[in-house]
Amino acid sequence: MPEFRRDIILDEWVIIATERAKRPEMFIEEKVKIEKPSGMICPFDKGNESMTPPEILRMDKNGAIINYTNPDWQIRVVPNKFPALKPFAAPGSVLHGIYNVMDGFGLHEVIINSSEHILNLSQLSEYQLSLIADVYIRRLKEIKKDSRIESVIIMLNQGRDAGASIEHSHSQIFALPFNSPVLEKELRGTLKYYRKYKRCAVCDILSFELKENLRIIFENQYFVIMQPFASRNPFETWIIPKSHHPNFENIKEDIIPAFAQCLKIIVDFFYNDLGNPSFNYYIHTGPLHTKTDHHYHWHFELVPKLSIKAGFEIATGIDICVATPEDTAKFMKEKITKIH
Amino acid sequence: MPEFRRDIILDEWVIIATERAKRPEMFIEEKVKIEKPSGMICPFDKGNESMTPPEILRMDKNGAIINYTNPDWQIRVVPNKFPALKPFAAPGSVLHGIYNVMDGFGLHEVIINSSEHILNLSQLSEYQLSLIADVYIRRLKEIKKDSRIESVIIMLNQGRDAGASIEHSHSQIFALPFNSPVLEKELRGTLKYYRKYKRCAVCDILSFELKENLRIIFENQYFVIMQPFASRNPFETWIIPKSHHPNFENIKEDIIPAFAQCLKIIVDFFYNDLGNPSFNYYIHTGPLHTKTDHHYHWHFELVPKLSIKAGFEIATGIDICVATPEDTAKFMKEKITKIH
Repeated sequence: MPEFRRDIILDEWVIIATERAKRPEMFIEEKVKIEKPSGMICPFDKGNESMTPPEILRMDKNGAIINYTNPDWQIRVVPNKFPALKPFAAPGSVLHGIYNVMDGFGLHEVIINSSEHILNLSQLSEYQLSLIADVYIRRLKEIKKDSRIESVIIMLNQGRDAGASIEHSHSQIFALPFNSPVLEKELRGTLKYYRKYKRCAVCDILSFELKENLRIIFENQYFVIMQPFASRNPFETWIIPKSHHPNFENIKEDIIPAFAQCLKIIVDFFYNDLGNPSFNYYIHTGPLHTKTDHHYHWHFELVPKLSIKAGFEIATGIDICVATPEDTAKFMKEKITKIH
Repeated sequence: MPEFRRDIILDEWVIIATERAKRPEMFIEEKVKIEKPSGMICPFDKGNESMTPPEILRMDKNGAIINYTNPDWQIRVVPNKFPALKPFAAPGSVLHGIYNVMDGFGLHEVIINSSEHILNLSQLSEYQLSLIADVYIRRLKEIKKDSRIESVIIMLNQGRDAGASIEHSHSQIFALPFNSPVLEKELRGTLKYYRKYKRCAVCDILSFELKENLRIIFENQYFVIMQPFASRNPFETWIIPKSHHPNFENIKEDIIPAFAQCLKIIVDFFYNDLGNPSFNYYIHTGPLHTKTDHHYHWHFELVPKLSIKAGFEIATGIDICVATPEDTAKFMKEKITKIH
C-alpha cells in the first residue's frame, strides 16, 4: 500500500509509493557511469587562475589563507562569471504595470573545491573536505556583515544530470535579499512545532530516529547520517548535527572534522556503491539576521538524481519517492559498515 | 542585469537570469530528436485492452461513450496498474512515534489518449484533442461525487526526460484527499490579492497582458495563450480562459473546441519549431468541495523540459529561468502567425 508520510519540518505530505518501490540495488544498475575528464581547457585548474574573475579567497592545502600570487593553493573562491545575482543593484522593487520587479541583487560565488582537475568529491580526502567546510563557514561569516543579505544557500551540483555545467568539482554560494520559499516553509513548520511542544522538531526527530534505528546510517560524536522518514527521493541522505544550533556558520571549529567524516562516507558510498549518480547537496541554515534560536536546527542534505520530477510533482509540489528510506538506509548502512 | 520577478499567483519571487539568457533559437538546437516507436508490445494499443486493469470509461471517435466490448474506441480510461494512490484505504492518519502516516488513499487513473500507437500529442487533430478535454471533464465530474476527494490534478508527461515511462501518449489523473502544497499556495496568493483589490489576480493578469501585448501568443473567443511574466522555465506556456471560473469541470461544453485549438497550436509548435522536447502539462483547477468562486481562476500550464532543476532550485524553491518570456513569446508568436 502506498503511504502518505508527513514531513514535520516542511509541514506537508510526501508519497512513498511502495507499489512502485524498487529494491535498493535496482538504482545502481540504472546509473553506472565511468567518469572521464573531457580534456578541455578548464578555468578552474591550477595555472588557469586568470580565466576566472578576480578571486575572493585563496586557501592552501593546510587551511591557511594565502595571497592571490601564491600558486600553491588548494581551494579558491571567485565570483560566478555568469551570475544569477549581482552585488551592485538597486535595493528595492519597482512596479511594472501590475507586477513587482527588482534587480537581481545578491551574491553568486563559486568555490573551486580543488586545484586538481577532479570531477568527483570522492577523489578528495576527509581533510580536504574539511577545508571546503571551513571555506563555507568563512564565506558565511563574511557575507553576514552585509545587512542587505537575509539568507545564504551553499550548494553543489555534481554531474550533468544534477545541473553541473563545468565538470571540475565546485560548490556555489547564493546570497539572497530575502528568505527562500523553502527556508520560509521550514521556519514556519519548525516554529509551529516549537510553539506546540516547546521543543525543536529536528532534535525530536534525532532522538526518535536514534531510538528506532531504522533510518540511521552512521553516527560519530557530533553528527548523525540518516535518511528522512518522509523522504522525497531514493537515497536522499542527511547529515544532522547532534547539538541544536540554527546556523551552520556558528558551529565550533573543532567539530568540522567530524562533519567531513560524514560527508566523506556519503560521497564515497555514492561513488563506490551507488554507481556514481549525479547528485546535489546543500546546507539548510537559518537566516543571517533573524533570531531562530529555539526552533531552527541547521542540517545538510544530499540528493542523488535517481528519478525524474514529472508533471505530478511539478503541478502539486508533492514528491513521490519510489523507495522506502528504511530499505535504502539498511542497504547503505551495510555497505558502509564493511569499511568503518 | 538579472531580475527578480514576483509571481502574483504563487506570491513568491522568480529569477530571470538575463546574464545567462539564451536566445530562443538556442533551445531548439539542444533538443532536436527524431521520435521512433520502440516496437515493443504496448498495453495501450487497440487490441491489447486485456493488458490493462478493467476500464473506467471508453469513448469512440465521435465522442460517444461506448460499451467495453466495442472495439472501435478512440480513448480509454483505466486505473493505473502501479498506482501511487489507492481507492481502498483507511481514511485517516496514524501516529508512528513522532510522525504522522496515512494510507495512500486516492485515485490514480490513466487516460489512453488514442487507440493508435502515437508518441506525440501533435499527431492528434484538434477534434481528437477536444475529446481528451471532454474526458478530463467527465472524470472530474464523476470523481467530484466522492466527498473524500478534495482536489484533482490532471497531467501529461510526454517524452522520457519529462518522466513518461510508457511511450504511448497518455494522460494521468490523481485524486487527492487534500489540497496539494502548490494549490494551497495558489489559493492563498489569489485570496490575498482578492482581499486587497476585490479582483481576481488572473483576470487582472489577463487584462494587463492583453494591453501590454509582450507575452501574448494567441487568442480566440474564449482563451488566451501566453507566457507568464514571472516565468519559471524557458517556453513555459499557459492557456487561460477569458471568463472567470475556478473549476475546469464547470466550463461550458461549447468552449471546448476553442480550448483544443489552443492546445493544438502549442503542441504543434513544440513539435515543429522547438525540436520536439519532452514536456509536462497540467491543469490548475480549484478544490472540488471548497468554494473559491471569487478569487481562483483555473488555467492550464505546459512546461517543456529545456533546463535542469539543480541544487539551488531544490534547496530554495526559487526557479532560475534562463530566457525572458518576452523573447520566447515573440519567437513563438512569429512561428505560429505563419500558420494561423
